Amino acid sequence: MDGRHAATVRLETIVSLAKRRGFVYPGSEIYGGLANTWDFGPLGAELKRNLKNAWWEYFIQRREDMVGLDGGILLHPRVWEASGHVEEFNDPLVDCRRCKSRFRADTLIEERLHRSTEGLSLDEMTRLIQEANLACPVCGVRDWTPVRKFNLMFRTFIGPVETESTPVYLRPETAQAIFVNFKNVVQTSRVKIPFGIGQIGKAFRNEITPGNFIFRLLEFEQMEIEYFIRPEMWEEYFDHWLNEMGQFLRWIGFKPDRLRTREHGPQELSHYSRKTVDFEYLFPFGWKELCGLAYRTDYDLRRHQEFSGEDLTYFDQERNERYIPHVIEPTMGVERLFLALLCDAYDEEPAVDVNGNPYTRVVLRFHPRVAPYKVAVLPLLRKPELVTVAREVAHELRQYFRIEYDETQSIGRRYRRQDEIGTPYCVTIDYQTLEDRTVTIRDRDTMQQVRVPISGLVEEIESRLRSA
Amino acid sequence: MDGRHAATVRLETIVSLAKRRGFVYPGSEIYGGLANTWDFGPLGAELKRNLKNAWWEYFIQRREDMVGLDGGILLHPRVWEASGHVEEFNDPLVDCRRCKSRFRADTLIEERLHRSTEGLSLDEMTRLIQEANLACPVCGVRDWTPVRKFNLMFRTFIGPVETESTPVYLRPETAQAIFVNFKNVVQTSRVKIPFGIGQIGKAFRNEITPGNFIFRLLEFEQMEIEYFIRPEMWEEYFDHWLNEMGQFLRWIGFKPDRLRTREHGPQELSHYSRKTVDFEYLFPFGWKELCGLAYRTDYDLRRHQEFSGEDLTYFDQERNERYIPHVIEPTMGVERLFLALLCDAYDEEPAVDVNGNPYTRVVLRFHPRVAPYKVAVLPLLRKPELVTVAREVAHELRQYFRIEYDETQSIGRRYRRQDEIGTPYCVTIDYQTLEDRTVTIRDRDTMQQVRVPISGLVEEIESRLRSA
Repeated sequence: MDGRHAATVRLETIVSLAKRRGFVYPGSEIYGGLANTWDFGPLGAELKRNLKNAWWEYFIQRREDMVGLDGGILLHPRVWEASGHVEEFNDPLVDCRRCKSRFRADTLIEERLHRSTEGLSLDEMTRLIQEANLACPVCGVRDWTPVRKFNLMFRTFIGPVETESTPVYLRPETAQAIFVNFKNVVQTSRVKIPFGIGQIGKAFRNEITPGNFIFRLLEFEQMEIEYFIRPEMWEEYFDHWLNEMGQFLRWIGFKPDRLRTREHGPQELSHYSRKTVDFEYLFPFGWKELCGLAYRTDYDLRRHQEFSGEDLTYFDQERNERYIPHVIEPTMGVERLFLALLCDAYDEEPAVDVNGNPYTRVVLRFHPRVAPYKVAVLPLLRKPELVTVAREVAHELRQYFRIEYDETQSIGRRYRRQDEIGTPYCVTIDYQTLEDRTVTIRDRDTMQQVRVPISGLVEEIESRLRSA
Repeated sequence: MDGRHAATVRLETIVSLAKRRGFVYPGSEIYGGLANTWDFGPLGAELKRNLKNAWWEYFIQRREDMVGLDGGILLHPRVWEASGHVEEFNDPLVDCRRCKSRFRADTLIEERLHRSTEGLSLDEMTRLIQEANLACPVCGVRDWTPVRKFNLMFRTFIGPVETESTPVYLRPETAQAIFVNFKNVVQTSRVKIPFGIGQIGKAFRNEITPGNFIFRLLEFEQMEIEYFIRPEMWEEYFDHWLNEMGQFLRWIGFKPDRLRTREHGPQELSHYSRKTVDFEYLFPFGWKELCGLAYRTDYDLRRHQEFSGEDLTYFDQERNERYIPHVIEPTMGVERLFLALLCDAYDEEPAVDVNGNPYTRVVLRFHPRVAPYKVAVLPLLRKPELVTVAREVAHELRQYFRIEYDETQSIGRRYRRQDEIGTPYCVTIDYQTLEDRTVTIRDRDTMQQVRVPISGLVEEIESRLRSA
């Protein structure tokens, strides 16, 4: 659109803006932080809510074939045996015997030996590290343990004494709560195949992560759909959902020029998947997975049927046929979309302030659908007669939209602040307002201002938001 | 209003309806369940969302003095030392030496010895049980361990090997994420005292619970506000928030006749509170805490300042004064409000069906603000000409509201189903629709039907929802 995508914003710029404006703070910062945890400040909390509400509206509310679910983080431990996570959900780790530093073996090999680890066994990785006579990146010594598997699920205990209690896991994906409740949903809703169950909720992965801000977290929120189909229809629905995911990304404001799709190679597929396609985004640290679509076959329902002894088949009345449905799974992570949206929205442009001085205007060009605040209400000056009317206007708008009222500093600085947090519209109350009860609406992107009567302000903003 | 509150609905009736209609399922049911965990089905997920969105709208969006936050479940372990939870957040437990059954000592004493345990020490409880020569409710033997404290926080480990890892807790309340981020919020937002920070999120308590459906859970969602004030203003703001909480409960549909407030006695106060008032609701199992308001003083910020070494004072520009703010805390639990709403909305009344036969009409009289579905779209009969128009209407409404489309069974049965899940409006497409493009809207509570043109349907429903 304006060539802004030629260069990618630096991650440091985003991290700094996110902290300074109250989007994202380091987790437990006053205690020196807790690695790979982050807290979302006032603006971040709104952006996350808007993302989740947009997802729910697009994929659940607007579709006839979808219902929602809200399952537990703590599930029966057998769930994770059936799902394969106890067996398969591991990272290969290797320790330096001298300095006791611990590394992901696959990352070490990829970064230091510059070769792929796709499909390599633990023994093969152990051998590669030894044959290359790799030095520890921390202490420089060449003395490694064999590569071992470590499960990525967080474990805790129900009951007061750990040694006598039931060990349970914090779910590493929300998907299983859907499979476990498949039968209940079929029996109590009037869903018919094809149909989907969608869920938003926290998941936890005990990973050694390489940083990159909120790209990979110990604790994160997933938005997952399990879409149940007749087995022979899988290719058709895979294409349908790939298209839907792309539509949704555009609906929340992503431009196409930093998005691409990439299909997983056979060695890269998860244990449950027969085909996976990732949407990748051009992050400041390169093309990385933004979200993904997987064809899980009937793996999960079949395993749960086997492990639980419950009949998880579905009777298809139209075809007079009983079968275990197959599953197409579109998955998105809230925080990763959040980071990509921040990067995608970030823009800098030369501008001139109200006094004629040039400055660099920083704008977050969020789609109004996800922008933390929809409107800022600003009296031109901090004068009682303007402030009184501005507060009335703010009070009225607050019944409909998430807004901010601001009477501090010069009007120019206040516009800059709203640009930098991505507020699409600024409503300014000036002296003409006192004469004719009109206010100006300033558009964040065009910076054009138009006057509208206060009496029609709510409708004007609703109409702009709807047509955006 | 109609005397319906003379008798309370039975809990079994609510549990059964909740399961049958897809509000609440037992957690991990296909694996025989996991004690005190529940999953929320399609209708439950919508009701929970509506409750949370209503809370956010009422307490965050509509107020000038509030901002939101979304902090982590995993916080630095020092947070829970500072907050007092490591030391103070315990249940007194006692074991039967013979059969190894474990009980909460306070519950045992209250239920078997019929006396209060408020303010009793562990030794005093131990002595009471022994002096009363109490028999184990399970095996009948009189051989008890001393009463011991067990901490209620779930513990887990960051890092791949538990013995070498950082132990962390799953937060037992969302409040601490707010206190820990107080300084960040003050520095990055333009909040001024008095102001509040609100948050919705999961909390976890490793409790031995007495059942009562979703009243007390291992894993639950809190909606908490920490409202920061000048110390001398605490009584004024305590009253303000008590009033606000009551207003909110009415706003989401609670009738006053099953609500009351109760102030905690001195022995009953939590370790951080100087005054606490509960809203109690008349549940099927008696008057119990629905939500609460606490005056936490400056306990938390002072402790975090002490434990972290960070300056957590606030500089009050208006008064040119620096102090640690005091805190008023209104807290609500999503699942508990959910259960109370189900009980409060439940109604039975004699009715006559379309064929003139009497039946008992079961209605959930949810306020439209929280009702899972706002509208049901129903073709009178499953005829292609009606279904086509009904689907068009459904498609249009779906852009604005969470709706259900249903073409199965007789129209009378479909109305009953919608009554039983609390859908405020049923839109029916009949043969007259084909002639004049009008449909009927049936009101759930009055059962009156009026005809409106399809072209004005969205506006009509929006206007009804707004004025409800």
